[in-house]
Amino acid sequence: MKISVLYGSTRDYGNTEQLTERVFDGIDVNKIYLNQYFFKDIIDQRHDPEGFDEVDDDYDDIISSIIDSDILVFATPLYWYGMTGVMKRFIDRFSQTARDEKFPDFKERLKEMQVYVIIVGGDSPRKKALPCVQQFGYICDFFGMEFKDALIGEARKPGTIQKDAMALANADNWNRHFKNL
Amino acid sequence: MKISVLYGSTRDYGNTEQLTERVFDGIDVNKIYLNQYFFKDIIDQRHDPEGFDEVDDDYDDIISSIIDSDILVFATPLYWYGMTGVMKRFIDRFSQTARDEKFPDFKERLKEMQVYVIIVGGDSPRKKALPCVQQFGYICDFFGMEFKDALIGEARKPGTIQKDAMALANADNWNRHFKNL
Amino acid sequence: MKISVLYGSTRDYGNTEQLTERVFDGIDVNKIYLNQYFFKDIIDQRHDPEGFDEVDDDYDDIISSIIDSDILVFATPLYWYGMTGVMKRFIDRFSQTARDEKFPDFKERLKEMQVYVIIVGGDSPRKKALPCVQQFGYICDFFGMEFKDALIGEARKPGTIQKDAMALANADNWNRHFKNL
Amino acid sequence: MKISVLYGSTRDYGNTEQLTERVFDGIDVNKIYLNQYFFKDIIDQRHDPEGFDEVDDDYDDIISSIIDSDILVFATPLYWYGMTGVMKRFIDRFSQTARDEKFPDFKERLKEMQVYVIIVGGDSPRKKALPCVQQFGYICDFFGMEFKDALIGEARKPGTIQKDAMALANADNWNRHFKNL
Repeated sequence: MKISVLYGSTRDYGNTEQLTERVFDGIDVNKIYLNQYFFKDIIDQRHDPEGFDEVDDDYDDIISSIIDSDILVFATPLYWYGMTGVMKRFIDRFSQTARDEKFPDFKERLKEMQVYVIIVGGDSPRKKALPCVQQFGYICDFFGMEFKDALIGEARKPGTIQKDAMALANADNWNRHFKNL
Repeated sequence: MKISVLYGSTRDYGNTEQLTERVFDGIDVNKIYLNQYFFKDIIDQRHDPEGFDEVDDDYDDIISSIIDSDILVFATPLYWYGMTGVMKRFIDRFSQTARDEKFPDFKERLKEMQVYVIIVGGDSPRKKALPCVQQFGYICDFFGMEFKDALIGEARKPGTIQKDAMALANADNWNRHFKNL
Repeated sequence: MKISVLYGSTRDYGNTEQLTERVFDGIDVNKIYLNQYFFKDIIDQRHDPEGFDEVDDDYDDIISSIIDSDILVFATPLYWYGMTGVMKRFIDRFSQTARDEKFPDFKERLKEMQVYVIIVGGDSPRKKALPCVQQFGYICDFFGMEFKDALIGEARKPGTIQKDAMALANADNWNRHFKNL
Repeated sequence: MKISVLYGSTRDYGNTEQLTERVFDGIDVNKIYLNQYFFKDIIDQRHDPEGFDEVDDDYDDIISSIIDSDILVFATPLYWYGMTGVMKRFIDRFSQTARDEKFPDFKERLKEMQVYVIIVGGDSPRKKALPCVQQFGYICDFFGMEFKDALIGEARKPGTIQKDAMALANADNWNRHFKNL
């Protein structure tokens, strides 16, 4: 059972990371801090006769690290009512990977994965993060990934996720769930 | 602390009710089974010079029963990706109550209330119940009610909510939360 | 080409109806004013051994009237950020019809239909009607109906839809579209 | 009347741009092709005692170019059911600009602006672009910008937006609307 956690934050040990750490307390997971990698915007060349140009950056390393996962966790602060730009840039590249000979089984592998989403926002996220959750749902539908659940926390200032008792309690539920897998 | 639970189901002790019972286990709540009351569709007379006609049904009894609540809980199975028609008919009448001399403090009272939503659906509710949650969010925004949280369970056949371990665990969290209020 | 328009309003010739009339100006359509029919709430008996009880009301007349349609149009004012209770009560009954021997081809017929949605609301409907549009989208997905488009208008007081120039212009586009079918 | 169009595409003259060009045919607008600028991810330093570090890139040029607009148009292809990563990276930076002494009236200026959104997607965008529209709605709510409308087109292969007759007709409506401002 391999669990990969993709962090979209741009701050170290922010509220999203704290909540996610609690979810995976005592569980061995493959953590990817997306902001520590250099990877470029996709250039949409899906319709170019020659297809996508090779891109020289760290992106393939991330894919190699997660492609044998059973579970993908997208952990992102809510920036402007969506996932962070860093995480979106990463996901945008999937369009290229799905056509990349270096990862011939990319789509086949994703189809086997379960997806969990963790979002922390400061402005009524239990209402206003829902479009972001829906977006992840559609992404899962596209690849045939099983969207399992979303955990939403509310916090603005650093560390204040520790005051969202319901989010913490639900995180503990997730922890028990993942420990029992 | 008065908690009123509005049930939208049309079946006795269905999955939604079972999940909700677990949430309020050991807690004294005011239960309203909407389908046990007779109340009519709203006739939109907001713009009639004379306003709304008096309506002769059980609706006012429900309002009288909940108007002094601190917390409103909307517990509904997901019918066609929304609250049940019974619950929607009830909420539609709010437009009349907001202008009803018999309940002069209706809007003022709602503004003081917290709202929780419990939804159980059979078709990917953790994705497909989100528009319904958003709808409740907008209703809360309108009245200035505080939308607190939504609890989503997945079940189709009677009793199968008992197999949604995550929903049950989150229900237990809600139970602890309400016991500590 | 048979087009059936299902009206969810509770007022005569309200804004939704005015916008819809403009859409179908000069086009022969089968109009169903749902509030002029008597039909009951669904009782969810999907899981009863004997299935659903026969219901004595006008509901079947509506189904008989629309079942040979090529296009279904749901025209509803936005009540509390959703379709009206009247329309929801109607749609809730689909669960029974899908199992009703009197309409053995109900699901097969729906699968052939295209769906259009017309919504008029008073409170920022171009934002706040979107959960309702999504709900119709999910309903279409369930039955395999093709969700074609939604037309959203903004109006509060009677007749003020005539001031929503963009909605009117888009209604004229729909009119041309339907005339060319 | 100054209209600024922010393009989120990563392809030249793609479907989104074609649709947007049609909207603004014969109208003088300030076009910003975001992918032609170099600007970095935000580093969330909202809570650092010293605030945000100065960032050396082209971002401020974009803000300077749009800050005196009356109307902002966000024109983006739907990438993975959201705005493109490029556009998201741009918007994420607003958190810094809102605290940037170089743009002391940023929030005040945004509050005066109207916002239009143009989205073209290949996978049922009239359903699946709605979370993205909702996201823009929340962004507008935050700043007090007036969210005016969204135009959604469906196209996958280059140029096929020209076959979405309804999107084109609605684009023409928008064109008339903007010409009459």
